[in-house]
Amino acid sequence: MTSFPVTERSRIRRLHERGTHAAAGIYAVLDAAPLCHAGYVIDGEPYVTPTLHWREGNRVYWHGSAASRFLRKVAGQRVCLTVSLMDGYVLARSAFNHSVNYRSAMVFGRAQVLTDPDAIAAALRRFVDDLFPGRWDSLRTMTAQELKATSVLWLDIEEASVKQRSAPPGDADEADVPVWAGVLPMRTTLAAAEPAPGPHRDLPLPAELASLIASGRLR
Amino acid sequence: MTSFPVTERSRIRRLHERGTHAAAGIYAVLDAAPLCHAGYVIDGEPYVTPTLHWREGNRVYWHGSAASRFLRKVAGQRVCLTVSLMDGYVLARSAFNHSVNYRSAMVFGRAQVLTDPDAIAAALRRFVDDLFPGRWDSLRTMTAQELKATSVLWLDIEEASVKQRSAPPGDADEADVPVWAGVLPMRTTLAAAEPAPGPHRDLPLPAELASLIASGRLR
Repeated sequence: MTSFPVTERSRIRRLHERGTHAAAGIYAVLDAAPLCHAGYVIDGEPYVTPTLHWREGNRVYWHGSAASRFLRKVAGQRVCLTVSLMDGYVLARSAFNHSVNYRSAMVFGRAQVLTDPDAIAAALRRFVDDLFPGRWDSLRTMTAQELKATSVLWLDIEEASVKQRSAPPGDADEADVPVWAGVLPMRTTLAAAEPAPGPHRDLPLPAELASLIASGRLR
Repeated sequence: MTSFPVTERSRIRRLHERGTHAAAGIYAVLDAAPLCHAGYVIDGEPYVTPTLHWREGNRVYWHGSAASRFLRKVAGQRVCLTVSLMDGYVLARSAFNHSVNYRSAMVFGRAQVLTDPDAIAAALRRFVDDLFPGRWDSLRTMTAQELKATSVLWLDIEEASVKQRSAPPGDADEADVPVWAGVLPMRTTLAAAEPAPGPHRDLPLPAELASLIASGRLR
């Protein structure tokens, strides 16, 4: 029983040794999902926290979660960011060959913390506009206090691994067994927007948000 | 800008100190998603791997990913398993109040590895039937070789934390600003089943799989 069998396994290697093609595959998975799981070692113990991430070239940014406790300890430390998208359950004729169609990227580097308010604002602009094109300019400027309260971390990808599976069950040798086999595809999509209460609740949905919902993508 | 603000934050605490209500909240999040991210410390460095998990009481089971390298090192070690479900983007009138609706549970314990073939088979039966009720008995028995090739780990939850947000943007004080604000709900669902190639590709979809797809849930 292999829940995450490896049909394309790139071993964890230094990214600069891997060439443009491998990096593109890793970036494609990072860019397809808004959410990553950040793994830290604090006092020798593992912590995995969910957070939104965004990418610029070989640099990945994310928010600190439960920031103060972690932030003081993770600056300069090695971090593992993992992005995973489940694309479907794979049901085979035998339990052993049941599997999952998925894409996953694991990247490693040393966490750095942004401290300059202008750098934080610039990073957040990219974050917001990457998810919702054009939205940043429709919003008021962030205050100095808000920038101070915002934690942005980043790492330059030093090592990385990508794994994916996208196929019917791998048990063609048992195809004559009369059991239903196949894939149950899994899709994550955005549903109809729910306006917030308030005097402007009848404002039309901005075109870029309507496009995002219609695209079937998450970003 | 708080990507994962905390509207219900239970600090990481020993589970037995937390009472039945807190445990139920943690279990509900664990049970809602098929996928977790497992965080290990190996040679002092963090590794976060995606894997399917299942639960029995206060015990969580999962598959080892890239098993051999990790398995030898994680037995008896502290592990953090995190389950996260994104429920929507929260767009506010200011960048700072943008957020995410989500549910996330983080559980800690010491990894144990199943070695007895009967115990592995029993665990896998629960795993398969938990996802696809009744499926195990429709499949042939696993061979001794298959059981030997299967890695199942478990931990008893010692400490845990649950966080969630489910609300419109938290910027009612700026509700008079004429910017579209609200929630873009995010849903993960199963799509129409794709039968595997083979002589039995026209077998009807088992009723329990049709029910699962129709339920809008993932398990």
